[in-house]
Amino acid sequence: MKKMLPLIAFLPMLAMAQTNTDSILIKHISDETMRNGKAYEWLRQLTKSVGGRLAGSPQFAKAIAWGKKAMDSIGADKVYLQECKVPHWVRGQNDKVAITAINGKPSPTTLDALALGNTIGSGSKGVTAEVLAVKDFAQLEQLKDKVKGKIVFYNYPFNPTNIATFLSYADAGKYRWTGASRAAKYGAVGMIVRSMSESTDNNPHTGAQEYNDSFPKIPAAAIGLQDADRLWQQCAASTVTIKMVTHGHFLPDTTAYNVIAEITGMDLPNEIITVGGHLDSWDVNEGAHDDGAGVVHTMEVLRVLKAVGYHPKHTIRFVLFANEENGSKGAEKYAEAAKEKNEQHIFALESDAGGFTPRGFSFGVPAQAWGKLNAWKTLFEPYGGSSFTVGGGGEDTEALKAAFKTPVAELIPDSQRYFDVHHARSDVFENVNRRELLLGAVNMAALIYLVDNYGL
Amino acid sequence: MKKMLPLIAFLPMLAMAQTNTDSILIKHISDETMRNGKAYEWLRQLTKSVGGRLAGSPQFAKAIAWGKKAMDSIGADKVYLQECKVPHWVRGQNDKVAITAINGKPSPTTLDALALGNTIGSGSKGVTAEVLAVKDFAQLEQLKDKVKGKIVFYNYPFNPTNIATFLSYADAGKYRWTGASRAAKYGAVGMIVRSMSESTDNNPHTGAQEYNDSFPKIPAAAIGLQDADRLWQQCAASTVTIKMVTHGHFLPDTTAYNVIAEITGMDLPNEIITVGGHLDSWDVNEGAHDDGAGVVHTMEVLRVLKAVGYHPKHTIRFVLFANEENGSKGAEKYAEAAKEKNEQHIFALESDAGGFTPRGFSFGVPAQAWGKLNAWKTLFEPYGGSSFTVGGGGEDTEALKAAFKTPVAELIPDSQRYFDVHHARSDVFENVNRRELLLGAVNMAALIYLVDNYGL
Repeated sequence: MKKMLPLIAFLPMLAMAQTNTDSILIKHISDETMRNGKAYEWLRQLTKSVGGRLAGSPQFAKAIAWGKKAMDSIGADKVYLQECKVPHWVRGQNDKVAITAINGKPSPTTLDALALGNTIGSGSKGVTAEVLAVKDFAQLEQLKDKVKGKIVFYNYPFNPTNIATFLSYADAGKYRWTGASRAAKYGAVGMIVRSMSESTDNNPHTGAQEYNDSFPKIPAAAIGLQDADRLWQQCAASTVTIKMVTHGHFLPDTTAYNVIAEITGMDLPNEIITVGGHLDSWDVNEGAHDDGAGVVHTMEVLRVLKAVGYHPKHTIRFVLFANEENGSKGAEKYAEAAKEKNEQHIFALESDAGGFTPRGFSFGVPAQAWGKLNAWKTLFEPYGGSSFTVGGGGEDTEALKAAFKTPVAELIPDSQRYFDVHHARSDVFENVNRRELLLGAVNMAALIYLVDNYGL
Repeated sequence: MKKMLPLIAFLPMLAMAQTNTDSILIKHISDETMRNGKAYEWLRQLTKSVGGRLAGSPQFAKAIAWGKKAMDSIGADKVYLQECKVPHWVRGQNDKVAITAINGKPSPTTLDALALGNTIGSGSKGVTAEVLAVKDFAQLEQLKDKVKGKIVFYNYPFNPTNIATFLSYADAGKYRWTGASRAAKYGAVGMIVRSMSESTDNNPHTGAQEYNDSFPKIPAAAIGLQDADRLWQQCAASTVTIKMVTHGHFLPDTTAYNVIAEITGMDLPNEIITVGGHLDSWDVNEGAHDDGAGVVHTMEVLRVLKAVGYHPKHTIRFVLFANEENGSKGAEKYAEAAKEKNEQHIFALESDAGGFTPRGFSFGVPAQAWGKLNAWKTLFEPYGGSSFTVGGGGEDTEALKAAFKTPVAELIPDSQRYFDVHHARSDVFENVNRRELLLGAVNMAALIYLVDNYGL
């Protein structure tokens, strides 16, 4: 397109903006962020100089040091580390999942696979068995007498019709989360799951799973969509034998830290607003969207509130949580310490759904707060974040909500691309857009300002 | 993030959807598109088998043949070509813009540059001259006595604070569009312009410019942002000499075609609704977002209306316009032919702002239509396209609007990434996301259905 005429299409808020203190301050926040925001540069540092950083790993220790130093540079009233114990799962050597035979004839074909987080490895000899392909748990139950000694392959698809792709993740994610033990219950010796994604590439998507201790712990891995489609067709036509060699294991829990910065409230220093994202990521990528974006969103909200000279009424805590991906021990520790100190937590906002262009927020708040929230919507329209929905905060605000009934919220960016990269090798810095990332921080800072000023 | 709980955050429309015919049909359109949509595969064909396709070029002839064949395959009531004459500008050999000397000392440095569309080349010897760097037209006027014999470099920035990035394009685009002649007026021998972009790479962004016939026609080129920043600093500190060698020229106008498909209206076949995008693109890329997306959006709207068995009341025309980028001759011809036949055009919808996730529509409609449009907004909320703003259609609906006062609209996708790739080498298939692309067609088809059923 070449059109050059000034478009008045994009100025719905101008009249209001000129007469409204809130919209003027939010415009100031936006201009400062879009001009001078550091979130993108911070993300480059975190992804390129630290990289993948699963809790317990040496890279995670490096991430904590980086986070502390970066937070120190922004000028909070205090910056400190909060100790917690985190699990230390390691993938070990390269995961290998390969077809060895079709109808008993050797037919070696390597599948692109990643062992699921928290799985126990196959042992170095691996597990070799015939594949039983099922489309869902219902079919597994129907075929339960045939499961023994097999590798169960769940080919449950990511539902393409949900425009909110997190719904499809919640749906398909059950297979990753519980599929290994549900197959082991009937004697399966291994599990393979179709990745929770609609991406057009063949990258496998890892993520945590949880064994049911009543059944044997079997190796489990995700495969990419192209391999899943091919394997499904092969299993329909033939007897397919697969060898899985994975090396996952737990080392002893290690000491880690939440990284916390604070601006002390002017009027109500003992009432706390929390803003956060999680510092850990999976080991196979740079954790750029998950959750590098949430980390640098959090830091950018701190930066911009300082930059525009805003002095909050309440104390605002900016928290980089340890260990969301495979344990949530950082969030639990944060809530536990708050409980011990009998702190008052009036609101918590999380960013853990990517660095894509913001669409709005999901709120877990009392019904009476909705009148106020609805009145604020127009303030967010110029910045894209005006879709306010009933829901919850993210994983890292759950413990706080449980402990204090704290109202919570989560930034909801556009989700169309999120599961292309989520927990896959492709979750790298290059797949984050600078303007989209900064705009997330604009909307978060605006919400923090409004809650700080007017409460919920 | 790992959260697995079903999120009720994303179901604001469920209650209404179950009781409302319109929302049920739109959900049907959405499900069919997200499951079986062909837009992405069509875009792959257009970008990879045809590629860049400036009007008049052999590639554009190939694009017309591809468009006709693809339209034929969808099952419209008729598919035909509408002849028009289009300009035939060619870039010629590689553009070259290089620093030759700094403060008179040889200092050869090639800049990444693209000649602007419709420019006249420098001749094979090129133009070598000292650079006069200005930040804007006001500074050019101040320095007009120093312009003679120089190459003027406009370093006007793309305003980062506009969340609607098309505003920044309208603002900065004046330098590309008119900057050469405004410099030539004072004796400049060449023009270089900072690309209209905020991308983090150094790709130059071409696009049309228009000479003022009162002044000499000088060569003009765009350079990437990193080169622009460096050149600006060098010019502030030193005397910089640059050599421009460009080869642009016009060949005789050629015959081209709009590709048109039609579904004949059941009730009001003589009242016409137009849906379109432009088939031409710049020569330096694959024209994936600009405007391959609009082309395949148009085709997908046709496909999905057929697939869900919708029989429109009005005749719907699906138009792939020839020559938007450097002449708009396709759109002019379409309006001219309609005028000759005394057709009734009740609505025209264009997609020419990229294949990114949809945010809404910009409308150029009579004031009394807004009551109806506002009532429709909630129908678009589940699909992301509910931001309805006052504006216009796109470039290709302008002539129709001028001829018939036809109400017009344009799809407004999220614009944060658009100018990263717009008119640059990076506007390629790989930078289009399948779900985002399809979702644009969902929203367009929903709007066409509503206008067809209820009018404006």
